[in-house]
Amino acid sequence: MEELKPSPANSTPLTPLVFLDRTATVYGDCPSVVYGSTVYTWSQTHRRCLSLASSLSSLGLGRGHVVSVMAPNVPALYELHFAVPMCGAVLNCVNIRLNAQTISVILRHGESRLLFVDVQLQGLVQEALALLPEDHPHPILVLIRDDSVQDPPSELGLGFYSTYEEMVEKGDPGFEWVRPASEWDPITLNYTSGTTASPKGVVHCHRGTYLASIDSLINWGVPKQPVYLLTLPMFHSNGWSFPWGMAMVGGTNVCVRKVDTDIIHRLIHTHRVTHMCGAPVVLNMITTGGKQLDHPVKILTAGSPPPASVLLRAESLGFHVSHGYGLTETGANVLSCEWQGKWNVLPASERARLKARQGVRTASFVRVDVVDPNTGINVKQDGKTLGEIAVRGPWVMLGYLKDPVGTSRCMRNGYFYTGDVGVIHPDGYIEIKDRSKDVIISGGVNLSSVEVESVLYGHPAVSEVAVVARPDEFWGETPCAFVSLKEGQKLATEKEMIDYCRERMPKYMVPKTVVFRDELPKTSTGKMQKFVLRELAKQLGPFTSSRM
Amino acid sequence: MEELKPSPANSTPLTPLVFLDRTATVYGDCPSVVYGSTVYTWSQTHRRCLSLASSLSSLGLGRGHVVSVMAPNVPALYELHFAVPMCGAVLNCVNIRLNAQTISVILRHGESRLLFVDVQLQGLVQEALALLPEDHPHPILVLIRDDSVQDPPSELGLGFYSTYEEMVEKGDPGFEWVRPASEWDPITLNYTSGTTASPKGVVHCHRGTYLASIDSLINWGVPKQPVYLLTLPMFHSNGWSFPWGMAMVGGTNVCVRKVDTDIIHRLIHTHRVTHMCGAPVVLNMITTGGKQLDHPVKILTAGSPPPASVLLRAESLGFHVSHGYGLTETGANVLSCEWQGKWNVLPASERARLKARQGVRTASFVRVDVVDPNTGINVKQDGKTLGEIAVRGPWVMLGYLKDPVGTSRCMRNGYFYTGDVGVIHPDGYIEIKDRSKDVIISGGVNLSSVEVESVLYGHPAVSEVAVVARPDEFWGETPCAFVSLKEGQKLATEKEMIDYCRERMPKYMVPKTVVFRDELPKTSTGKMQKFVLRELAKQLGPFTSSRM
Repeated sequence: MEELKPSPANSTPLTPLVFLDRTATVYGDCPSVVYGSTVYTWSQTHRRCLSLASSLSSLGLGRGHVVSVMAPNVPALYELHFAVPMCGAVLNCVNIRLNAQTISVILRHGESRLLFVDVQLQGLVQEALALLPEDHPHPILVLIRDDSVQDPPSELGLGFYSTYEEMVEKGDPGFEWVRPASEWDPITLNYTSGTTASPKGVVHCHRGTYLASIDSLINWGVPKQPVYLLTLPMFHSNGWSFPWGMAMVGGTNVCVRKVDTDIIHRLIHTHRVTHMCGAPVVLNMITTGGKQLDHPVKILTAGSPPPASVLLRAESLGFHVSHGYGLTETGANVLSCEWQGKWNVLPASERARLKARQGVRTASFVRVDVVDPNTGINVKQDGKTLGEIAVRGPWVMLGYLKDPVGTSRCMRNGYFYTGDVGVIHPDGYIEIKDRSKDVIISGGVNLSSVEVESVLYGHPAVSEVAVVARPDEFWGETPCAFVSLKEGQKLATEKEMIDYCRERMPKYMVPKTVVFRDELPKTSTGKMQKFVLRELAKQLGPFTSSRM
Repeated sequence: MEELKPSPANSTPLTPLVFLDRTATVYGDCPSVVYGSTVYTWSQTHRRCLSLASSLSSLGLGRGHVVSVMAPNVPALYELHFAVPMCGAVLNCVNIRLNAQTISVILRHGESRLLFVDVQLQGLVQEALALLPEDHPHPILVLIRDDSVQDPPSELGLGFYSTYEEMVEKGDPGFEWVRPASEWDPITLNYTSGTTASPKGVVHCHRGTYLASIDSLINWGVPKQPVYLLTLPMFHSNGWSFPWGMAMVGGTNVCVRKVDTDIIHRLIHTHRVTHMCGAPVVLNMITTGGKQLDHPVKILTAGSPPPASVLLRAESLGFHVSHGYGLTETGANVLSCEWQGKWNVLPASERARLKARQGVRTASFVRVDVVDPNTGINVKQDGKTLGEIAVRGPWVMLGYLKDPVGTSRCMRNGYFYTGDVGVIHPDGYIEIKDRSKDVIISGGVNLSSVEVESVLYGHPAVSEVAVVARPDEFWGETPCAFVSLKEGQKLATEKEMIDYCRERMPKYMVPKTVVFRDELPKTSTGKMQKFVLRELAKQLGPFTSSRM
């Protein structure tokens, strides 16, 4: 058959920006972004994004330039997901929970040209900028004001070029937005929040982001015009691609500055929220009070394995929990625990166990395999043999910025190697057991810290738990559990915890040490900072095991 | 910012075939294809498709080869949507309602290597093959048997190489399917059914088909595991991409050999059908009896503008009608009449009028414009000015096979020019008014035949109507209506029809001639063959108009 080539009629580069023009036509009068008493319609959001893009363009910003933002989930951060790439530039959302030192490293490494700063983060940003080398050009600063948290001062603070609203007002809503020259052009730069120490600049392209956005909608079964509560920070992997997806289906984005249990419940009630996302730590937090929902809410959780007890509680309060798995390097989820109708008849605890698995690849992703990291060969599909999760698909990042060595270390053989360790069950569902560096090797046996944690989460006194390796004179390493206790349960003892484990797991998995702490160290996205705990466990010195 | 290039981890060619492996894991035990008493699961469908692909591959079929099928909506035709491209070949579904002459032209033009033939179509195919030039190599023939319509003969008929089931049985279910080398590689070849005389070979690629499949699911709001009744022939633009889409969401495909009102209602009831597609002529047919549904069914209609009266009736019986617009050259829909919540309060007739519009571009499509065909400039957004529909987006065909002139005639300036004429309303919704060649030019004014038809459809005696131009001594052309009447309404007169129109439309639009026929000529996909009627109107001789 003769070869027919692509033509301009069918080969416009794929980009999630394509959704916005259309949504302004279809859902022009419908609410797009809600924040406190502010309500924008899709027609307004469309015009505001184009205006802002034109203002950025007037400043000379465009292809290949990095524009950074430091803001919580306020409307500006939502709009910037469109406005920045619409001027051709690359959006860099910076995690606002980082310290000044790390922020300064990011601004320098990304060569940020302009930085949008939330009003409450001015101090932190000034601190970070002060840490830049003297000869390093400072980014242009634009202030995002917020009447709900301050009396707006009449004058701009020192160093600010303009305010966000001024840039919107001065811009041209008739601006013709800049389409990517290639669908492989970068759209975002995200620094890994890091369970390790050094953040890396993950670059995603328009094509991957577009494909992730639509696959995520289908995967979660999102209907048209959902009401989406932004509990997941947009600076965290661009909110798993849903900011763009919501424009495709004409959803309402309910913004919230701070994830607080009472506020969340009030917003769910007031706005009749239908969908929200959050790491298991958020799910844990908002369900701890035991407040029943007055209508069902779909919540998608990912980021770390959710304890079965948290899943159970959330479902009992009216949340419909979906569970998936992705990384900053994939942007959106690549695994999803697709629910099977036949599981509905199982006991609640069994349902929770099944749902705690990360699942199967999403429909448009190409491969998610569990492989022996040395040979690259798939491990047995037995639910037992540990292997590294290796993935291939359209929303794997382009690579790490200015880090060809780091990129080639994890991207090889046509896969991205995640550094996560898991098993594949006989039914084809994958379950993450640990970060590869969190695996505890006790007497030559690989032992998943997450499995020990999930047992301890079942103990009625336990609030949070993290298990790491402690050096052991005889076994090499043995599990050491760091535990925070619930209010009013502070009398639990180490022996009680160890006995609890003895009854519920093989001997070799039982922690030899239990350390109680008021709070456990977590990253800004709620992941345990195990490297901190590992350090503490080392400082305890080697455990003296008997042979058992 | 440094340029990062695509790598094997993120650049696997896009193809809708990627859905099947996964669905076999997630929905392995769930029904995939149902036909009479036959029920396959997704795990079986997966194995059957791989087996068949391996058998095709063993015959030397692969990249660049065309494999044809002539079959109604039986399971084999569904499976071939995966099996043929899985061996690397191009799927050519031939319209089974064509005559032997046209089929022979298609087989020759497409250089078909192998032809799957439904048991009931053997005679037609033999006739077509006999019309091939003597030196033209015949395709390998494979018989698709069907126990439900015949006693299977013990021996294969003359000329057949094998049966479909034999090829499935002999194949290897462990076959590693052939991924496209490029996502721009062809996946299908469809000949336009033709409101014109000469069929053209429309070539679609893996990428466009994949993107159309997922966009169509979101656009129609298809949830996971729908029950999909295959009322729309798969040989008609590959069923608007839903055969692949159903694999993505793990739907059940209910096959049906013949679209018959009683059978359709029985299948809807028995299988609790949730979704189905059909041209307005099908919608008309299955609602004519006035049978109420026992549960709501979503029906997507496209292919020609649905008369408001048919929409009204369908909704009153329990169908939720969505309306879209596409062509063989786009495969799936490119316009969709997105429903607005605020329209729910309008009177039924007004709702039907709004729904009869083709709508706005689907979310992933790039542009659908109404342009002056001479200048290419967009017409006024006034709901009145006629222009040609020009489209740009990822599922515009690669081109017509072996027809560079035909391809470049309709693909230019980065658009595919559809040959359809319409208007764009102030709210941005597009309404098709006519095929460009069906526009009637009366006294220098462009007049839409479809508008006249939609008025006549409101007359209680009218079953079907088609309006074409009749030469007119004074006006150049005037409308001539061909009408078929409902049973028991055969006494309606020409004068009655003309008077009915006079009360409801401007004078210049009123037909001067009304011709009653028992049946109107239609293409195999249910579209009026206006070129036949135009010929008949010409044969009536020029109408002698007074000046009015």
